[in-house]
Amino acid sequence: MSHLTIAEVYQKARELIQKLNQLEEKKNQALKELAETEIEVRGWVKSVRFQSKIFIALNDGSCLQNLQIVCSLSLLEKAKSANFGSCLTAKGKLELTSERAQICELQAKEIIVSPVASGYPLQKNKIPLDVVRNYPHLRAKTNYFLVLFRLRHSISKAIHDFFHQERFYYISTPIITSNDTEGAGETFNVTTNEIQSTAGDQKEPFFSKPAKLTVSGQLQAEALAQGLGKVYTFSPCFRAEKSHTARHLAEFWMVEPEMAFTNLVEIIDLAEKMVKYVINFVLDNNNAELKFLENYDKENKKEIISKLKNIATNYFKRINYTQAIEILKVSQENFVFNDIKWGMDLQSEHEKYLCNHFDKPVFITNYPMDLKAFYMKNNLDGKTIDCFDLLFPEVGELIGGSMREDNYNILREKAQKTKLDTNNLSWYFDLRKYGYAPSGGFGLGLERLLMFLTDTKNIRDVVPFPRYPQHLEC
Amino acid sequence: MSHLTIAEVYQKARELIQKLNQLEEKKNQALKELAETEIEVRGWVKSVRFQSKIFIALNDGSCLQNLQIVCSLSLLEKAKSANFGSCLTAKGKLELTSERAQICELQAKEIIVSPVASGYPLQKNKIPLDVVRNYPHLRAKTNYFLVLFRLRHSISKAIHDFFHQERFYYISTPIITSNDTEGAGETFNVTTNEIQSTAGDQKEPFFSKPAKLTVSGQLQAEALAQGLGKVYTFSPCFRAEKSHTARHLAEFWMVEPEMAFTNLVEIIDLAEKMVKYVINFVLDNNNAELKFLENYDKENKKEIISKLKNIATNYFKRINYTQAIEILKVSQENFVFNDIKWGMDLQSEHEKYLCNHFDKPVFITNYPMDLKAFYMKNNLDGKTIDCFDLLFPEVGELIGGSMREDNYNILREKAQKTKLDTNNLSWYFDLRKYGYAPSGGFGLGLERLLMFLTDTKNIRDVVPFPRYPQHLEC
Repeated sequence: MSHLTIAEVYQKARELIQKLNQLEEKKNQALKELAETEIEVRGWVKSVRFQSKIFIALNDGSCLQNLQIVCSLSLLEKAKSANFGSCLTAKGKLELTSERAQICELQAKEIIVSPVASGYPLQKNKIPLDVVRNYPHLRAKTNYFLVLFRLRHSISKAIHDFFHQERFYYISTPIITSNDTEGAGETFNVTTNEIQSTAGDQKEPFFSKPAKLTVSGQLQAEALAQGLGKVYTFSPCFRAEKSHTARHLAEFWMVEPEMAFTNLVEIIDLAEKMVKYVINFVLDNNNAELKFLENYDKENKKEIISKLKNIATNYFKRINYTQAIEILKVSQENFVFNDIKWGMDLQSEHEKYLCNHFDKPVFITNYPMDLKAFYMKNNLDGKTIDCFDLLFPEVGELIGGSMREDNYNILREKAQKTKLDTNNLSWYFDLRKYGYAPSGGFGLGLERLLMFLTDTKNIRDVVPFPRYPQHLEC
Repeated sequence: MSHLTIAEVYQKARELIQKLNQLEEKKNQALKELAETEIEVRGWVKSVRFQSKIFIALNDGSCLQNLQIVCSLSLLEKAKSANFGSCLTAKGKLELTSERAQICELQAKEIIVSPVASGYPLQKNKIPLDVVRNYPHLRAKTNYFLVLFRLRHSISKAIHDFFHQERFYYISTPIITSNDTEGAGETFNVTTNEIQSTAGDQKEPFFSKPAKLTVSGQLQAEALAQGLGKVYTFSPCFRAEKSHTARHLAEFWMVEPEMAFTNLVEIIDLAEKMVKYVINFVLDNNNAELKFLENYDKENKKEIISKLKNIATNYFKRINYTQAIEILKVSQENFVFNDIKWGMDLQSEHEKYLCNHFDKPVFITNYPMDLKAFYMKNNLDGKTIDCFDLLFPEVGELIGGSMREDNYNILREKAQKTKLDTNNLSWYFDLRKYGYAPSGGFGLGLERLLMFLTDTKNIRDVVPFPRYPQHLEC
């Protein structure tokens, strides 16, 4: 402790008082400014309570939290026409209420209300999701879907930021295509009305060959990676599967990075890093939304935040297919599909078991040759493929990736064994001839990731306007 | 100048010498580190020169600049198999050559070459764009297209960053739709093979009504803005127009922001701010690419950077349609379409004249009612629309936007006058009933913006795999 002269003591005290006065002045100035500044807010009415004053909860979509609008009874007549969903403009002064969770409220001097028409199918009380699903154009007027759509935004932003930071180029692969990447045959056709017409000039179809909606941008991404080095697509994809499960959509969004000069370990590292980046982005930016989801069902509260933190901070498990089969064999689990043997396709019950077994996401590599797509690279053992799936707790396969077959002849042979029209793929085979760098990448379904991050059971809820068999609303 | 004691002078000198020694030590250490560290690079060979040593220009897609690989003649045999496009791995030490534009080169100890097959359609010399266009899967192997695709990446990133910063939510509007926003009838149909089939279970079409590819995400974006407040789509759109101009594609990408609680001035402000943000992003991040484009045609050097800087730093002009007509009337210009009168649609020659007249981008507002889409808001004058187009020098219309008609009855009437199937739009009309906040937005074609920023004359060059009549390659 240093010794001070009395003069110094007085000096110090004088300085402190001056400082305190300045702070007091600043504080008074801030409060005065607040008391003098009139602001205007606009939003949709979430609730109205009539007491000694009128309390209106207002939301404008900018955040989850409502702003409380406080009106004196002189505004009663106007406030009476405010019902759930009304558009309301309020002018007045902001008042701090720092002791409460909502740190401020608006003391309204004036309100303008545009009431909703009768027959509004949504109401103030919590609306069962089944009901809201019937009104896709109104879903964004409910908190639950607002939260899901905000998280969808965050995840998309995080994905773009991640790949930009990793120096990948964002590319546009075509939606209308003549190629069927997977050869599963479940594609949508694209036609114009002129095809049916036989009149003079118009009888020629728009495209010179059958056009389909893309199932994956991968093949085209590979072409671009052979010049740009590291690229990714983030784009709609389509499957005309007539499946009515809670995990399938006819239209969904896929993220597909592709790298030249790479190997499988690098691709797996990238996938793990990307998933963790997205999770951390959401944890940093969407705490309010995640908490809302945790508490949405009061009787079945969920653990989302701690689950995500756990995944973001631990290494994912990496095993090969053969090891996975060995684990399943000795598991003593009562599987429905219980004929566990090398060569079989893993069922979702097996995938779940493996995630539970390790209590974390699991990469499984080197699947048997017959289970995987033609473009994946054969391993030297003549039995397996240089590929991986990333299995996630609850959702199962989240990501699938591989090195691409670089041998022109093997690739052609493998393609010919599928139902693909290989004539339309000659450009793809040709890539192997003209300066082909070892290439690989993966595909991630945005909606699957969103389901996991939000603990949503039905994939139709994480996309604003879902498309599935017989459903084409809005 | 302060007076020093001699002791202080010596002290200062000693300190300086110590500092210089430390710096010298650091410098030596850095050079030693460089001389000891072996690095490996991988890329495609752009050129090979055999002199007293062998000089190979290598590019891996990560930037425009090649890295010079220097090999001694002991590597001659290997280097001989390196031709244009070969994949090459080089190991060696980096050497600074700070006096040259390329500040370093690699002294190779070892190279591994995978030569390209014969018949490679691209060659080392500058390849005419007409030739490259015939090989869409190989375009990313030429500098010109690498530059365009890198700029495409930057613009996309800038757009996402801009809207995130402005607190817009990125939303997915559907690609497969039953709605035709514009009513122009030039849509693609989406079908499945099952439609034609008459066999038992399979004869039911996939969707319960005719499905098309979207021409715009706007109507759905409006639905989401009525809850999320500020949203934007960035998504593929489709037009089945059989037009063979250099400005049209069957598949292109559109950016469509939509805001609730807004007015036309705010929308125009947003459009101007967005364009300037994108231009500044490109100026900050893509100097090398822009310079490449300026000098691509040695005989017709272009002024791109100064043009962009000029646009980014000046206000855009804002006039209304009536003023535009007055200017054209008194212009004395020899227009092909020279019957200038109120009510006519502006031709591209008129748009160009107006941009030249003001020597900057021009917003034109309040077009006549008959010229614009049904969803745009009528002005009170009964003649004009609360809308705008943004005209850009060279490219013409870059952005179109409007406030949306908020009156349920007027909107329905206007829609019924078009060829639209209004049954499929009842959900859209309904938005006006249940808490409709004044809403508006605009649409920007990504490829048009890219054409302007890169001074590209053919829209087919700014998209990796262009789709237009009779063209569905790759």
